Amino acid sequence: MPLISTQSKGVYVIAVTPFTDNGDVDYDSLDRLVDFYFEHGADGLTILGMMGEAPKLTQKETLEVSRRVMARAGDKPVVVGVSAPGLAAIGEVSAAVMDMGAAGVMVAPPSSLTTNESIFGYYANVVAATGEAPIVLQDFPLSTKVNISTDTLGRILEAHPSIVMLKHEDWPGLAKVSALRAAEEKGRRRTAILCGNGGLFLLDEMLRGADGAMTGYAYPEMMRDVVALVPKGDVERASDIFDAHMPLVRYEQQPGLGLGVRKYLLHKRGAIASSAQRKPGAGLDAAAIADVERMLARLTRRLAELG
Amino acid sequence: MPLISTQSKGVYVIAVTPFTDNGDVDYDSLDRLVDFYFEHGADGLTILGMMGEAPKLTQKETLEVSRRVMARAGDKPVVVGVSAPGLAAIGEVSAAVMDMGAAGVMVAPPSSLTTNESIFGYYANVVAATGEAPIVLQDFPLSTKVNISTDTLGRILEAHPSIVMLKHEDWPGLAKVSALRAAEEKGRRRTAILCGNGGLFLLDEMLRGADGAMTGYAYPEMMRDVVALVPKGDVERASDIFDAHMPLVRYEQQPGLGLGVRKYLLHKRGAIASSAQRKPGAGLDAAAIADVERMLARLTRRLAELG
Amino acid sequence: MPLISTQSKGVYVIAVTPFTDNGDVDYDSLDRLVDFYFEHGADGLTILGMMGEAPKLTQKETLEVSRRVMARAGDKPVVVGVSAPGLAAIGEVSAAVMDMGAAGVMVAPPSSLTTNESIFGYYANVVAATGEAPIVLQDFPLSTKVNISTDTLGRILEAHPSIVMLKHEDWPGLAKVSALRAAEEKGRRRTAILCGNGGLFLLDEMLRGADGAMTGYAYPEMMRDVVALVPKGDVERASDIFDAHMPLVRYEQQPGLGLGVRKYLLHKRGAIASSAQRKPGAGLDAAAIADVERMLARLTRRLAELG
Amino acid sequence: MPLISTQSKGVYVIAVTPFTDNGDVDYDSLDRLVDFYFEHGADGLTILGMMGEAPKLTQKETLEVSRRVMARAGDKPVVVGVSAPGLAAIGEVSAAVMDMGAAGVMVAPPSSLTTNESIFGYYANVVAATGEAPIVLQDFPLSTKVNISTDTLGRILEAHPSIVMLKHEDWPGLAKVSALRAAEEKGRRRTAILCGNGGLFLLDEMLRGADGAMTGYAYPEMMRDVVALVPKGDVERASDIFDAHMPLVRYEQQPGLGLGVRKYLLHKRGAIASSAQRKPGAGLDAAAIADVERMLARLTRRLAELG
Repeated sequence: MPLISTQSKGVYVIAVTPFTDNGDVDYDSLDRLVDFYFEHGADGLTILGMMGEAPKLTQKETLEVSRRVMARAGDKPVVVGVSAPGLAAIGEVSAAVMDMGAAGVMVAPPSSLTTNESIFGYYANVVAATGEAPIVLQDFPLSTKVNISTDTLGRILEAHPSIVMLKHEDWPGLAKVSALRAAEEKGRRRTAILCGNGGLFLLDEMLRGADGAMTGYAYPEMMRDVVALVPKGDVERASDIFDAHMPLVRYEQQPGLGLGVRKYLLHKRGAIASSAQRKPGAGLDAAAIADVERMLARLTRRLAELG
Repeated sequence: MPLISTQSKGVYVIAVTPFTDNGDVDYDSLDRLVDFYFEHGADGLTILGMMGEAPKLTQKETLEVSRRVMARAGDKPVVVGVSAPGLAAIGEVSAAVMDMGAAGVMVAPPSSLTTNESIFGYYANVVAATGEAPIVLQDFPLSTKVNISTDTLGRILEAHPSIVMLKHEDWPGLAKVSALRAAEEKGRRRTAILCGNGGLFLLDEMLRGADGAMTGYAYPEMMRDVVALVPKGDVERASDIFDAHMPLVRYEQQPGLGLGVRKYLLHKRGAIASSAQRKPGAGLDAAAIADVERMLARLTRRLAELG
Repeated sequence: MPLISTQSKGVYVIAVTPFTDNGDVDYDSLDRLVDFYFEHGADGLTILGMMGEAPKLTQKETLEVSRRVMARAGDKPVVVGVSAPGLAAIGEVSAAVMDMGAAGVMVAPPSSLTTNESIFGYYANVVAATGEAPIVLQDFPLSTKVNISTDTLGRILEAHPSIVMLKHEDWPGLAKVSALRAAEEKGRRRTAILCGNGGLFLLDEMLRGADGAMTGYAYPEMMRDVVALVPKGDVERASDIFDAHMPLVRYEQQPGLGLGVRKYLLHKRGAIASSAQRKPGAGLDAAAIADVERMLARLTRRLAELG
Repeated sequence: MPLISTQSKGVYVIAVTPFTDNGDVDYDSLDRLVDFYFEHGADGLTILGMMGEAPKLTQKETLEVSRRVMARAGDKPVVVGVSAPGLAAIGEVSAAVMDMGAAGVMVAPPSSLTTNESIFGYYANVVAATGEAPIVLQDFPLSTKVNISTDTLGRILEAHPSIVMLKHEDWPGLAKVSALRAAEEKGRRRTAILCGNGGLFLLDEMLRGADGAMTGYAYPEMMRDVVALVPKGDVERASDIFDAHMPLVRYEQQPGLGLGVRKYLLHKRGAIASSAQRKPGAGLDAAAIADVERMLARLTRRLAELG
């Protein structure tokens, strides 16, 4: 059972949670989905993030989903989102999933944090609550409403070696990646940086020194290719693939609507039996499906052209 | 086991959740606290609201606290806060506590709601998820970031008879109380209106037609007196008592800090064994304690003067 | 001097305001920029919007910039952004620019509006303050923090015939465009819908029935082509062009950073003498310039391939 | 013409701007109001703050109001609010009012600032733009949405000696006052701290070491007395007066509604000819007037009791 570390890299797909049309967790689809992700380019998985509908699960389901995914993933790393309003719950779930063999836990800041001081203090509490578990700090202001400045982020990373990875999805955020890497060159310890935001800036982020992707775009193979090609110096080929997917990436990245797009595509690709979301959360209407199908047809053609 | 209704009135105290200094739920103090509230003027209780540190409890603790309070409260009504990110959890906890004998459930809107349409749609989902349970709609924009206009609130009340009560804590909110009552005079069905905000506008709200208080000020006897005296027309006596408490009410109503003040006072009054909060959440420093003690001394003197 | 109307369509470019490196308004560049926009596909201009650094201008400069642009634009329509905290200022500037020959005025809601009622009331005041001027309602929640629901928007449009146009940049917002058009089919009066958001969803919006673009992407020719081709049914050709520009559109649409990208490109294209922004507001660093140049090289190649 | 400094203390009343019922600035009332403030306990004035309806004035009116107030104030200090979206406007208005004899300028942070770094950077720009003018930093997160942590505030004060005063109205904010004073005891240069929030915590703030009040409560004599009595050690007498006013202070401090209350009281006291606000901004309805009159009657009686 591997742990994430400051040396981790590659593609960690943010997994959706499959439900039946009745709203029950669909564990058979969950198995199939895990296989699908690893067959299409994932190096690891991150479950129970925001796009995993985690807050809609009961604590029992949370643990059962975690167990099932880890069993299926075998020796591949699985990170578990454990963000919760109380530190007790964070500690409790963290201990449980680390016991099951999780590779680490991910914690986003609660929206009640309003200053650099309170953000810093919060992560000190998180580190205390999670003990030895390797932590991914999720930096996603558009959703959390918490803006972590580059220097505050640096102070947190310096203070807490157990925070080994950043899920980077500040927007705009390229300068932040560059600044973090520059600080490492001046002596700060290394942090793994995997990028979110649906992959919308993945190529640019890799060029700034990111280590990979941690997001849930329904075509992990795009992320696999970009993450592999940029470090090899083949930016043109990476850009060809990246640009081909961009209309769809952009469409899937719409707040609120995006999960419907993602589940529609995963269902279409055979990874899950239903595109249903647990309430509240709506699927795609006919116009949105037409948009997606139009983009898919063009994507297929463009990838064929590229060879 | 009574249910709340559109005719409910009086003082429903928002109960704190007592913890030991170690952060465990202190069930003995919980029993004592329930007695304390009813001895000092409560007509009912509301548990697991924001000031009850509800999000810091595990689901198991949530149910155990509910069971314990209801057992102790006997035939007095107990409302349970069931706000949660997912409708499944709301439905699940709601069914469980109604089964135990709760008088109703309280639901605040999640901060993701940004328009009148989405707020309206959310409460339709809540009503569907909670079945027959009488619902308290908590309207507290300062904390939820969700602003419900008077007309949207009216549309929700008209559409859903199971929403029998409003926990009113918009700020400024006096005109909203007046507008709701005016609509009832023109034919809309009655809604019970109990007021929050720590009691800071309780007298003014009673004069606008509110039915009582639903908040957790550490001196429920003030709320009992104001709620009893205003309908009898004794506004001066009600004001004397209200004004005497106001410096302390105002101090306890500071966001974030207030729960520390409240637990300090309840501890001092012998209702709970420790003023500890579960993490994150800090107690009072020496300067704040000095402030509170200064105000307490004056309150005691002023109440003696008033007789 | 043409006025905008409910029948307006095409590309209204949101003009930047050129400054010298010292921070003075550069009126010679302003003339050149107006020519540039019309030579590259603009049907009209919108000045003094958010990306026009309007709040950084003195009122005297505001009027001088307006005068200069209208003189240069000749008989082409020029819309002027007049958003301001006070209705007196909105009325005053609106009257002044309409006198100069503006085609209409644009007003975004102030962030203090928190409910459907207050939004509705605000536009009633705006209509009263601007008299006969045709109004563009700017619906841009990401920036204004004001979320206007589809039904509230509909009520505003029904109440105020002088609001002839919507600058649509809600995100996600495609369903809103569809809903507005559906309401018109059921009898609501027509409203012109021009789309913003840097053009990131322009093709999809045109397919939903939008009338054009009102945004400032540094390559207006892309917008011209997409807006012309979709109504002709040539979606594939429109998509080829749109997709080719998308990496750059996406990069230019980053909040805060985007204006630096836009001015860099306009300077590079010879439209303005300096890419400087008035303070506060920073230009591009070397890494961002490298990003832009990389994308430009690919764009040029891709457009050549497409022929 | 005195300047504010780190040694300033006392009561600086935040002046309203009087309008006629037509919405014109009422300069005769402005003269009378200045006299009223100084006759009722003001040591200085602060004009064109948020409660001065500053954003609703044209730049010409801004300067004319400033000129008129300074002429009438004679040798008493007048601080001018110069917050504006652009630094050019801040610099321009600041230079103009300092030339007229202002005692200093006040600047609140714009809501676009989201991190400690951007807040720090902003005040560096403000200091550069205002040159030699003594600056009041307004710290009012409830209104600005910008939360300045205590350490960030400290860094700003250390970096910029021209920021001589803090208008303190964070909420809760008592611990911040204590922390600032503690840092001074350890060697940081002194900053004057005058308190806002309508005076709702003035007594507590004075006990923590504040230097006075900078807010606009319609009874400046309360603020004068509290600010004078606490340093003399007569906390009981200060509390008697403070507590007597508290119901009204609390009522006037309601966001949005408060200015209507304040102008109603100033009109009733003969300080201004009309309680009108420039649009948007509404006066009191009959129920609110009844509330205010009820509290006034009690205040008068209570003050008589106190002697």
